Amino acid sequence: MDTRSRGSGRLTAPMFGGAAALAIFDDAGTVRRMLDVEAALARAEAHCGVIPAEAAAVIADVCGDMRGDMRGDMRGDMRGDMHGIDLDALAYDAAAAGNLAIPFVRQLTAAVAQRDAHAGRFVHWGATSQDIIDTAMVLQLRDAAAAIEADLVALGQVVAELAARHRATPMVARTWLQHALPTTFGLKAAGWLDALRRDLGRLDASRAQACALQFGGAAGTLASLGASAPAVSSALADLLGLQHPVLPWHGHRDRMVEMATTLGMLTGTLGKMARDISLMMQTEVAEAAEPSGPGRGGSSTMPHKRNPVGCSAVLAAATRVPHLVATMLAGMVQEHERALGGWQAEWDTLPQIVTLASGALSHMREVAGGLQVDTARMRENLDMTHGLILAEAAMLELGGRIGRLPAHHLVEAASRRAVADRSSLRDALALTLAADPSHATLIDDATLDRLADPANYAGESSRFADAAVRAWEATLTARQQR
Amino acid sequence: MDTRSRGSGRLTAPMFGGAAALAIFDDAGTVRRMLDVEAALARAEAHCGVIPAEAAAVIADVCGDMRGDMRGDMRGDMRGDMHGIDLDALAYDAAAAGNLAIPFVRQLTAAVAQRDAHAGRFVHWGATSQDIIDTAMVLQLRDAAAAIEADLVALGQVVAELAARHRATPMVARTWLQHALPTTFGLKAAGWLDALRRDLGRLDASRAQACALQFGGAAGTLASLGASAPAVSSALADLLGLQHPVLPWHGHRDRMVEMATTLGMLTGTLGKMARDISLMMQTEVAEAAEPSGPGRGGSSTMPHKRNPVGCSAVLAAATRVPHLVATMLAGMVQEHERALGGWQAEWDTLPQIVTLASGALSHMREVAGGLQVDTARMRENLDMTHGLILAEAAMLELGGRIGRLPAHHLVEAASRRAVADRSSLRDALALTLAADPSHATLIDDATLDRLADPANYAGESSRFADAAVRAWEATLTARQQR
Amino acid sequence: MDTRSRGSGRLTAPMFGGAAALAIFDDAGTVRRMLDVEAALARAEAHCGVIPAEAAAVIADVCGDMRGDMRGDMRGDMRGDMHGIDLDALAYDAAAAGNLAIPFVRQLTAAVAQRDAHAGRFVHWGATSQDIIDTAMVLQLRDAAAAIEADLVALGQVVAELAARHRATPMVARTWLQHALPTTFGLKAAGWLDALRRDLGRLDASRAQACALQFGGAAGTLASLGASAPAVSSALADLLGLQHPVLPWHGHRDRMVEMATTLGMLTGTLGKMARDISLMMQTEVAEAAEPSGPGRGGSSTMPHKRNPVGCSAVLAAATRVPHLVATMLAGMVQEHERALGGWQAEWDTLPQIVTLASGALSHMREVAGGLQVDTARMRENLDMTHGLILAEAAMLELGGRIGRLPAHHLVEAASRRAVADRSSLRDALALTLAADPSHATLIDDATLDRLADPANYAGESSRFADAAVRAWEATLTARQQR
Amino acid sequence: MDTRSRGSGRLTAPMFGGAAALAIFDDAGTVRRMLDVEAALARAEAHCGVIPAEAAAVIADVCGDMRGDMRGDMRGDMRGDMHGIDLDALAYDAAAAGNLAIPFVRQLTAAVAQRDAHAGRFVHWGATSQDIIDTAMVLQLRDAAAAIEADLVALGQVVAELAARHRATPMVARTWLQHALPTTFGLKAAGWLDALRRDLGRLDASRAQACALQFGGAAGTLASLGASAPAVSSALADLLGLQHPVLPWHGHRDRMVEMATTLGMLTGTLGKMARDISLMMQTEVAEAAEPSGPGRGGSSTMPHKRNPVGCSAVLAAATRVPHLVATMLAGMVQEHERALGGWQAEWDTLPQIVTLASGALSHMREVAGGLQVDTARMRENLDMTHGLILAEAAMLELGGRIGRLPAHHLVEAASRRAVADRSSLRDALALTLAADPSHATLIDDATLDRLADPANYAGESSRFADAAVRAWEATLTARQQR
Repeated sequence: MDTRSRGSGRLTAPMFGGAAALAIFDDAGTVRRMLDVEAALARAEAHCGVIPAEAAAVIADVCGDMRGDMRGDMRGDMRGDMHGIDLDALAYDAAAAGNLAIPFVRQLTAAVAQRDAHAGRFVHWGATSQDIIDTAMVLQLRDAAAAIEADLVALGQVVAELAARHRATPMVARTWLQHALPTTFGLKAAGWLDALRRDLGRLDASRAQACALQFGGAAGTLASLGASAPAVSSALADLLGLQHPVLPWHGHRDRMVEMATTLGMLTGTLGKMARDISLMMQTEVAEAAEPSGPGRGGSSTMPHKRNPVGCSAVLAAATRVPHLVATMLAGMVQEHERALGGWQAEWDTLPQIVTLASGALSHMREVAGGLQVDTARMRENLDMTHGLILAEAAMLELGGRIGRLPAHHLVEAASRRAVADRSSLRDALALTLAADPSHATLIDDATLDRLADPANYAGESSRFADAAVRAWEATLTARQQR
Repeated sequence: MDTRSRGSGRLTAPMFGGAAALAIFDDAGTVRRMLDVEAALARAEAHCGVIPAEAAAVIADVCGDMRGDMRGDMRGDMRGDMHGIDLDALAYDAAAAGNLAIPFVRQLTAAVAQRDAHAGRFVHWGATSQDIIDTAMVLQLRDAAAAIEADLVALGQVVAELAARHRATPMVARTWLQHALPTTFGLKAAGWLDALRRDLGRLDASRAQACALQFGGAAGTLASLGASAPAVSSALADLLGLQHPVLPWHGHRDRMVEMATTLGMLTGTLGKMARDISLMMQTEVAEAAEPSGPGRGGSSTMPHKRNPVGCSAVLAAATRVPHLVATMLAGMVQEHERALGGWQAEWDTLPQIVTLASGALSHMREVAGGLQVDTARMRENLDMTHGLILAEAAMLELGGRIGRLPAHHLVEAASRRAVADRSSLRDALALTLAADPSHATLIDDATLDRLADPANYAGESSRFADAAVRAWEATLTARQQR
Repeated sequence: MDTRSRGSGRLTAPMFGGAAALAIFDDAGTVRRMLDVEAALARAEAHCGVIPAEAAAVIADVCGDMRGDMRGDMRGDMRGDMHGIDLDALAYDAAAAGNLAIPFVRQLTAAVAQRDAHAGRFVHWGATSQDIIDTAMVLQLRDAAAAIEADLVALGQVVAELAARHRATPMVARTWLQHALPTTFGLKAAGWLDALRRDLGRLDASRAQACALQFGGAAGTLASLGASAPAVSSALADLLGLQHPVLPWHGHRDRMVEMATTLGMLTGTLGKMARDISLMMQTEVAEAAEPSGPGRGGSSTMPHKRNPVGCSAVLAAATRVPHLVATMLAGMVQEHERALGGWQAEWDTLPQIVTLASGALSHMREVAGGLQVDTARMRENLDMTHGLILAEAAMLELGGRIGRLPAHHLVEAASRRAVADRSSLRDALALTLAADPSHATLIDDATLDRLADPANYAGESSRFADAAVRAWEATLTARQQR
Repeated sequence: MDTRSRGSGRLTAPMFGGAAALAIFDDAGTVRRMLDVEAALARAEAHCGVIPAEAAAVIADVCGDMRGDMRGDMRGDMRGDMHGIDLDALAYDAAAAGNLAIPFVRQLTAAVAQRDAHAGRFVHWGATSQDIIDTAMVLQLRDAAAAIEADLVALGQVVAELAARHRATPMVARTWLQHALPTTFGLKAAGWLDALRRDLGRLDASRAQACALQFGGAAGTLASLGASAPAVSSALADLLGLQHPVLPWHGHRDRMVEMATTLGMLTGTLGKMARDISLMMQTEVAEAAEPSGPGRGGSSTMPHKRNPVGCSAVLAAATRVPHLVATMLAGMVQEHERALGGWQAEWDTLPQIVTLASGALSHMREVAGGLQVDTARMRENLDMTHGLILAEAAMLELGGRIGRLPAHHLVEAASRRAVADRSSLRDALALTLAADPSHATLIDDATLDRLADPANYAGESSRFADAAVRAWEATLTARQQR
C-alpha cells in the first residue's frame, strides 16, 4: 500500500465546491473520461479500418469495465482492485513522466494486453498525451457546464420570483454605503437577474466553443495516421459528441480560457449578490437573512447571531477565481507545438475555477432560495434619516413651481433644520415654507404627505423589475425552442 | 499654472500602447466623450419636453465647442484656453470629489452659464456621475473596438497569407522545446490564424454586449425624471447609437469585464505568436526575423544582433494583461447601488487593457507583416538530428510490414547507431537492416529516401493550413454580409 | 510640435496617486534620475582614469543643466526648450528602440557633443541600457520609499493616538458582519497600528535590499571596462549612495519584486482599515465619519450624505495592487541575461504600485487624522441586541456557580425569552432565574447590572491597545537610534 | 460509508507538490496540528488553573491518540477507525458550519467525553474557531518552512558547486534571446546562487514573523478567560514554541501573506532557473540537459528527445504562484474582527503556494543536482556567429589606438564583410585592416588571435562567480552561528 500523500484541499472541498463539479473533476471523474476517449479512439479507428475491429472491441470493453469499477467509489480509492486503475501509482508515475497520460496509457495497455495481447498493441494508436488529456478535460467541462446551467437556470427562477414579488417593496438604495434614495427590493433583485441572464448567454456561447475535440498526434499533424487521419478524427468527434474543429488546437488555449472567463464573470455576479445580501444581513441593517437550519451558521454562545455562511463561501470564491482566471490567461503564451509550464498550469487551475464557480452557484441557490426578507425593516430603514432621503424628490416638486435654484435653497434649509431639530424633513419643510409668506401656500399637506412616502419616489423601479423578469422569461423560452 | 504632477506611464505609453487607443483614452479623449454624453442628454431631454429646447441647444453648442478645442491638442494641455476644460483642475478636483464627473459637470455648467445663465440650470439634468462616466467609457470602448477590429482583420489577412504561402514549407515541430516531428510553417501560422478568427468572433460578441447605455440617475431608478424617464432614456440611447438595456446596469460590471476578458484572450493569442516567433529568431534557430528598419532593434556594438523588439512589447503586454483582467473580475463584487473601490478600480485598468491589447496587436501586425522567413534554415534545422526526427515515420513504415513491436526494436537500434556514429538515421537504418538477413530486402533504397525526407511526414499539415485559411475567409465574408 | 497622444491615466492620477510618488515617477522624475546615473557614471570613470576628467566634467554639467531645466516643469513638457530632453521624441523613439535608454543616450550624447564634441564620445561609456534604466528605477524607489516612510510613521502616530484615546471606549466587535461581543475602539485601532508597525519593518528591510546599484555592461560581465571594472563599479555605487551588490543583478528581479510585495502588504493593511471605517460610516452604523471639507464627499441633492471618498480611493488601490504585484512576480521568469517581456512588464507596473500605495497611504492619513468618532453611537449600537451580545458573559458567570452546561441552558432560555418579549437579556435572565426556586437567589441585581454593561466584558481590549502603542513607540525609538 | 467526492487535484499533486509539504498540508496533516493546538490549550489552561488538571490530561491524551492514529495513514482515510476523526464527516459538516473548527471541536469533544464526560466540558475552553485554524496553519507553515529551508540550502550548495566549477567555462550571454557577448556558465550559475541566497534571507525573516500564536477568543479580546487571559496566552505560545505576539492578529493577515510573498519570490527565482535551463536544453542549443532516468522525460517513439520535465513542473508552478500570492494580498481587506470571504480564501490558497513552491524547489534540486553540462557545445555555440560576438572587444581594442569612432567604422565594415563572406570576424578584420595602408600594422596576428578567443572577453565573469560563492558560504556560516 502506498502511503504517500496526495495533498491538500480535500477537507475544504465540500465547503467551496459544487457537488456535481467535485465528482466530475475528482480522480475517478478524470480517469473515467480518459477511458472514454481511449475507447472512442479505438472504435473510431476500427470504423476507419486503421486497427482491427476485434482489438477495438477489447479495448472498449476494458475501458468500460474500468470505468464501471470506478463508479463504485467516487473517491477512486481503487488500490485493492485488480481490474482497476491504480490511482496512487498513476499519480506518482505522472510526476516522473510529466503528465498523466503516459502512465495512464501504460496501465491501460497492460490491462488490455492481459485480456488480449494482440489488442494491447492498438491502445492509444496514433494519439499523443495531449489528445487524451485535453479531450478528457473537454468532456469534463461539458458535463460540468450542464450541471452549472441547471443550477443557473434554477437560481434565475428564484431571483425572478424575488424580483416579481418585491417589484414595489420600498427599500433604501445605497451608494458609497450611504443612504441615497428609495428604490425597491424588486429592482435590486432585477439587477441580479439581468446579470444572471447575461451569464447564461455567455455559458451557452463558451460551452459551444469549448466542446471541441483535440486530436493531432505527437505534433498536431496527425502524420501517424497517414491518409486515414481525417476520417478517424471526424469519427472520433462524432462518437464523443464533440465539435470537429478546423484543426487541432492544443497550443492555442483560448477555448479553455473562454470557459474560465465565463465562469469568472458568473462568480463575480454571485459575489456581488453575496456582498449585497451580507450587507443587508448586518445586525444594524437586518433587512434579509440567509435561511437557517441545523448546524448552519449558528453560534452556541452567541444566540443572536445568524452567520451568512453561504455568502461567505461565495465571497471566498469571488476572491479566488479572478486570480485563477488570470492564471489561465497567463498560461496562453505557449511555446511552439507544446508548452513548458503554460499548459501544465491549467491542469489544476481550470478544475478549481469550475468547482468554485459551481460551488458558489449552489451556495447562492440555497441562500436566495431561502432568503428571509424583512420588508418592515426595509421600510423602517428608509425612515432612518427622517425623510432626508427624499430631499431630491422635494426639490424636484418645488422646482417645478418656483424654479430649481430657489427650490434647492429651500430644501437645503429644511434639511439643516431637520437635522438640527431631529425632526422629519417633511415637518421641517412645512415649517420652513410656513415661515415665508410667499411660500406659505406653495404646497399643501397632502402633497407633503405624498412626498414623505418613499414609495412615491421609487421612479422606474417596478417597471425595471418587470422588464428584467420578462427578459429572463423570454431567454428561457428562446432556449427551450432551440 | 498648475505645476503638480499627473503621474507615470507617459514615456512608455507609445512603446506598449496602440496609437488609436492611446488617443481614445487620453485626457482629451475621455473628456470629449463625457461632453458627447452631456450634449446628447440635453438633446434627448429637450426632445421629450423635459428641458427647454433653447437650453439644450446652448448646452450642445458649448459641448461641441469644447470638444473642438480639444481636437487641436490631443494631449489636452488646455490650460491657457479660456473656452476649454481645465484638465489640471479637473484632475485635482476629482481627487477630492471622488470622481471625474462632479468637477467636470461643474466646469461645464460654468461654461454654459457664462453663455446663457438659464441654460446653465439644465446641464446634467436628472443624471448622476456614473451615468456620464460609464456611458463615456462605453463610447471609448466602441471606438477602440472599431480600431482593434480593423487591426485584427488586417493581422489575420497577413497571417492567412503566411499560412497559404507556407502551407507545405517543412519545419520542425517542437514539443517541450525539443524537436518532435516535421510540420509545416503553414500549419503553425494556421494555428495562429484560427485563434485570431475566434478572437474576432469574441470581439464582435463582446462589443455588442458592451455598447449599452448606462442611465439610471442617482440610484438607478431614474426617479428624477418622473414619467419622462423611459422616453428620455430611449432617446438618449438612440442619439448615442447605443443599445438600450433592460435596466440600468451600473452595479453589475460584466459588460465591461467581458470586453476585458475578450481583449485578454486576444493578448494571449498575440503573446503565443510572439513567443513562437522570438524562439524562431534565436541565434541558434534563425528561422524567422522581425522586419528591420532604422532605429529598430539594432545594436551599434553588436552588429550580429537583430532584437525582437516587437515581440518583446507583445510579451510584456501578455505578462501584464492577465492581471489587469483579474482586477476587473475582482472589482465585480460591488456594494449595493454604487460601490466603494470596485468601480473606481476599473477607471485606469480597463483603459490599460485596451491600450495594451491594441498596442500588442499593432506590434504583431508589424512583426507578422514584415516577417522574414528563412525556409532554407527551417529545412536545415529539420536535419539537425540527422533524421532521428523521422523515427516515428520509419517505425510506422516497418510496422506495416513486420508488426509494430519488431519495428520499434529495429528503429530503436538504428537510432542508437545513428547517434553513436553521428550518421543519419537513414544510413543507420540501412546498415541495421542489412546486418540481418531476414530484413535485408525489407525496404528498398527509394523507400528509405522517401522516409528520410521530412516533407513526406508532415501529415495533414497542408490540409489543416488550407482549412484554416478557408475558415478565415468564410468568417470575413459572413461578417461583410451582415 | 508632436501631437501624438501619450495615453491614459493622467486625469485620475491625483485621485489615486500620492503627490510625492507621482512627481518621482512622472516623465521628468524618470529622466532626471537617468541623468543622475549618467553623470555619476562619467564621474566614476574619470575618477578611475577610464575617461578624461574634462569629458566627465562636461557630461556631468550637461546632465545637471538638463536636470535643472526639468525642475521648472514637473510635467516635463519641454518641447520648446533647446537645452532639454525632448520627451515626446524620447517616448516615440523608445517605441522603436525597445527601451528608453537608447534614445535617451542619443539625445544626451548630442547635447554633450554640441557643447564639446570630444566629451560626447564618453557618454554612457561601458554601460548598457539596463544599467541606466534599472539604476534610475532604484533611485526612484529610494526617494519614494523615503516619502512613504514619512507618511507611514505619521499615520502610525495618528492611529496610536486613536488607540490610546479609545483604549477603553466600548464598541461592538463584529464577526461575519454580525454583532459578536463587546470590544473597544482602541483595540480595533491597535490592530491597525500593529499591522502598520510590521509594514514599517518590511519597508526598512525591502528598501535596504532594493537600493543596490545595477551595473554590468552589455551582458553582465563588465567586459567593456576591462581591468577597471571593479573600481568603476564601486565608485559609481558610492557616488549614488547605493549598496554595491555581490554581482550585477539585472536578470534576477527579486529586489524590485520584494519592494512591490512590501507595498502590496501595506496597501492591504490600508485596505483593511478603509473597509472597517467605511463599514462604520454606513448610515445604519454611523460610528465614524471621514473628515469633511469643501468639495469633499458631499452631495448637493442628498444633504444627508457624507461619502467615504478617502476610503473609496484606498479600496480601489487595494483592489488593484495585488494584481500588479502578481505581474511583478510573474515577470521574474526571465530569459538568460536579458528578458523578452518580463523586464519590460515592470516598467509601468512598479511605478503604479508605488504611486497607488503612496496614494492610499496619504488618503488614509487624511481619513484617520480627521476621523470623527461617535462614541455615543458606538455605545448605542452595543445595546441594539438588548444585551444578547453579553450572553457569553452571563453564561460564564453562571457557569462558575452551577456548571457550564446548566448555565448554557439557562442563558439560552433567557435569550429566547428576550427575543420573544423584545426585552433585554438582563431582564429576561432575571425573570428566568426567578421562575425557578433553585435559581432565584443565584445572582443578585448588582451582578446582573454589572453583566449588562458591555464595558465589563471587553476582556483584554485596553491592555492589548496599550501594548500595541508601546510596541509602536519602541519601534520608533529603535529606528531613531540607528 | 460516505461516497461523496472530495474534489480535484489529487492525481496531479505529486507532479507539482513537494513531498514534505504535501504531507504537512493534507487532511491528516491539518487535523494533527489542530489536535496539537487543542492539547496545548488544555495544558496551558490547566497550568494556569483555568480548567482541572485531570480534564486537561484526558484531553491531551485523546488528542495524542487521535494524532497517532493518523500517522498510520497519511491520506487520512480514517473512516473505519473508531478512535479517529471522521474526515468525511468533518469535510461535509464544515460546509454547513462555515469552517473546519466547529465540527472538529464537536468530534473531539465527543471523543473526550466518551472517555471522561467531565473532561469533555473543557475541550476548546475559551477559544474560538479562528484560534485553532490560524494557529494550526502557523504550525503547518513552521514545519513546511523547515523542509523548504533544507531543500533551499541543498539546492544552493549544488548551484554553488556549478558556479565554482564553471567559473571560467565560456558560453554565450544572450539578451533578447540573441547572442550578445561571451560570459561564463559560472556567472550564470552565480546569478542563480545569489538570488537563492536572498531567498534564504527572506525565508528566515518571514518565518520568524509568521510563527506567532493566534489566540483571541470569539472577538479578539480573550474576555472568556477573564483575568487568566494573559497567562494562558503566554503559556500556550510557550508550549507550542511560537512567538507571543503583541495582540491577537486574526483580522490582519500580513504574517501569512508575507510568507506567501517570500515563497512567491522563491518560485520566481526557480522559474528563472528553469527558463534558462530549458532554453539551454533546446535541440538547437544543447548546452545542458536534465538528468535522465527510467520513466523520466523520455519518448518511446522519438528517441532523440530528452524532455525537460523538471523544468516544466517548475515553470507551471511559476505560472500559478503569482496569482495565488495575489489572492492572499486581495484577501487582506477584511471586515472588522472576522472577515467574510477574505479569510476563507486563504484556506486552500496558502497550502497551494507552499506545496507548489516546495515542489518547484525539489524539482530544481533534482534538475540542478544532475544537470549535464556540455561545455564543448557551449564553446561551439560561441563560434556560431563566426566571432561577431566579439565585435565589441575588437572595437575597444582598436579604439584604444585610433579612437572610438574610427574603430567603430572599421569593425562595422569588417562585420559586414564577415557576414557577406561567411568568414570569421577575425579574418575579415585582418583583411579590412590590410586593405588600408594606414591600418596595416595597427594590430598583429597574436592580438587578433587573442581577440578571437571569447574566453578573453568574459570580463569579470569568474570573479563575480567567486564572489557569489563566497557570499553564499558566508551566509551559511552566519546562519550556523546563530
